[in-house]
Amino acid sequence: MKGEIFYGKGIRELEDEHPDLYDLVKNINETVWSGNVLDYKTQKLIAIGITASRADPRATKKQIQSAINELDITKEEIVDVLRVVLLTSGMPAFSKSLQILNSVISTMDEE
Amino acid sequence: MKGEIFYGKGIRELEDEHPDLYDLVKNINETVWSGNVLDYKTQKLIAIGITASRADPRATKKQIQSAINELDITKEEIVDVLRVVLLTSGMPAFSKSLQILNSVISTMDEE
Amino acid sequence: MKGEIFYGKGIRELEDEHPDLYDLVKNINETVWSGNVLDYKTQKLIAIGITASRADPRATKKQIQSAINELDITKEEIVDVLRVVLLTSGMPAFSKSLQILNSVISTMDEE
Amino acid sequence: MKGEIFYGKGIRELEDEHPDLYDLVKNINETVWSGNVLDYKTQKLIAIGITASRADPRATKKQIQSAINELDITKEEIVDVLRVVLLTSGMPAFSKSLQILNSVISTMDEE
Amino acid sequence: MKGEIFYGKGIRELEDEHPDLYDLVKNINETVWSGNVLDYKTQKLIAIGITASRADPRATKKQIQSAINELDITKEEIVDVLRVVLLTSGMPAFSKSLQILNSVISTMDEE
Amino acid sequence: MKGEIFYGKGIRELEDEHPDLYDLVKNINETVWSGNVLDYKTQKLIAIGITASRADPRATKKQIQSAINELDITKEEIVDVLRVVLLTSGMPAFSKSLQILNSVISTMDEE
Repeated sequence: MKGEIFYGKGIRELEDEHPDLYDLVKNINETVWSGNVLDYKTQKLIAIGITASRADPRATKKQIQSAINELDITKEEIVDVLRVVLLTSGMPAFSKSLQILNSVISTMDEE
Repeated sequence: MKGEIFYGKGIRELEDEHPDLYDLVKNINETVWSGNVLDYKTQKLIAIGITASRADPRATKKQIQSAINELDITKEEIVDVLRVVLLTSGMPAFSKSLQILNSVISTMDEE
Repeated sequence: MKGEIFYGKGIRELEDEHPDLYDLVKNINETVWSGNVLDYKTQKLIAIGITASRADPRATKKQIQSAINELDITKEEIVDVLRVVLLTSGMPAFSKSLQILNSVISTMDEE
Repeated sequence: MKGEIFYGKGIRELEDEHPDLYDLVKNINETVWSGNVLDYKTQKLIAIGITASRADPRATKKQIQSAINELDITKEEIVDVLRVVLLTSGMPAFSKSLQILNSVISTMDEE
Repeated sequence: MKGEIFYGKGIRELEDEHPDLYDLVKNINETVWSGNVLDYKTQKLIAIGITASRADPRATKKQIQSAINELDITKEEIVDVLRVVLLTSGMPAFSKSLQILNSVISTMDEE
Repeated sequence: MKGEIFYGKGIRELEDEHPDLYDLVKNINETVWSGNVLDYKTQKLIAIGITASRADPRATKKQIQSAINELDITKEEIVDVLRVVLLTSGMPAFSKSLQILNSVISTMDEE
């Protein structure tokens, strides 16, 4: 399912213990990723941009992995996203995100 | 020129007083917006997502105006960007950005 | 309804144009504010703390107004929230939020 | 003493090297946590909300540990705090904080 | 007194209503601005950098006004601070802060 | 070269793959660190303040290492920067940055 990238162990355990929260998380994911006019890939690129601009390493890594694995988004396309991150958010966020991108790519190459 | 949206009065005055900074700003804009694989429109949607996710009203407004005026990006497309903002950044950023979007649109309708 | 504080004009217009997003916003509000063990008032104090710590004037003002009008939360209680904001987020967020609190209170006294 | 959660090694070393800063840190802690009307537990829940909303893993973990160990705050109560984090700050902050909560709880169960 | 820039109306009213908080604010200001080795001016430049990097218009304006009025810090020096803001925080924070700087300067010229 | 602190592996790989981005990064670094009136050391102290105020551990560590190694900035001077971080950004950012400073210093002592 779209957006399952955020379903870590914590979210999955909600299903038993807090079904109202689990249903809400599902509802958010289904509604958010079903853009009326933009396709899933464009929305995914936007999500990478937002998490990368916050220099949030965990979320950035998850979004990049999901983008490459599920949607065949290329390294080149993500570098173009990071150009916008450099502009809007400065060098530390750009540099850290580039490092995460390279590390995700090289882990895949090893597999 | 692409990215001129950020050329407020402050930036333009740099041209005389700090030409090294002015040239840098131009260099950043030209390099960032010239994605190798993503088109300008997709990069612009990403920029809207990042500024909206920070609940930065001034930059969000400028990006939305530029998107609509220069690139014929539609309200629908921006709402799809804001879906990702709701997911990644919560209700206050979503609600404030939606308000900015509506206000930009209604100002245009009046003209 | 709880959480209606965020239903600005932008959200209300979603009802016609993007009913899926409107339903999601309602779902989020209903689920979030229905804590299993904490009461609405405690959750509201937490929301004030979060928005104040971000020095987000619009959301802080809305949360404080809602707290005072709907829940009879006192100025003293909000000052105690702002103590935690001072600790976790520093002087500018504390000082700005205190100013917002005073301005909300004095507007009410005039009415 | 209340607030000692922040007294890591760095702060304790201040006592010898920068006694003015050490006294200030003590003064901040004593003043902040001594709310006039809210009890310590409610202020602690607010502190969890603020640190969790920033997706600051170190501070969130410390606040949650302190809440459970010193104040017998329950997992359920913290989940109710995280509901407000989901609303105000989005899914990545919610998901990461839930993971930290689960990890703190399971470490305690092992002891 | 150093740091009085943050003593807006809200802080001053604390003196009667919450003297413990007022004394804490004074204690913070006196301790923070009394660097052992850096002079007040350098600390002030750092404060401008931090508030400008957050694109916090209110605090940035206050810090810049205080820097120019109390410490004869020049426009050139603040532009050099903003260079670091551009690097670490991106174009929107740089552009907005530059605008604030120009507006503070031109208000002074009019007086 | 000034600012090479940000030239992690990710940035260096840009030289072959995205020379336009690599040249831009160089241009940013050269322009930013060449203040007209402030010296490199003061600009470096400002950069530490900004990264520390964001509680960004990776960038804070890099800036502190660079400050000590390249510019003989002392622990005392950095503590004075952190005073401003405590004021503007609160205890968690102050406490985390102090920990990073101590850890950088003690790693150096071991060498």
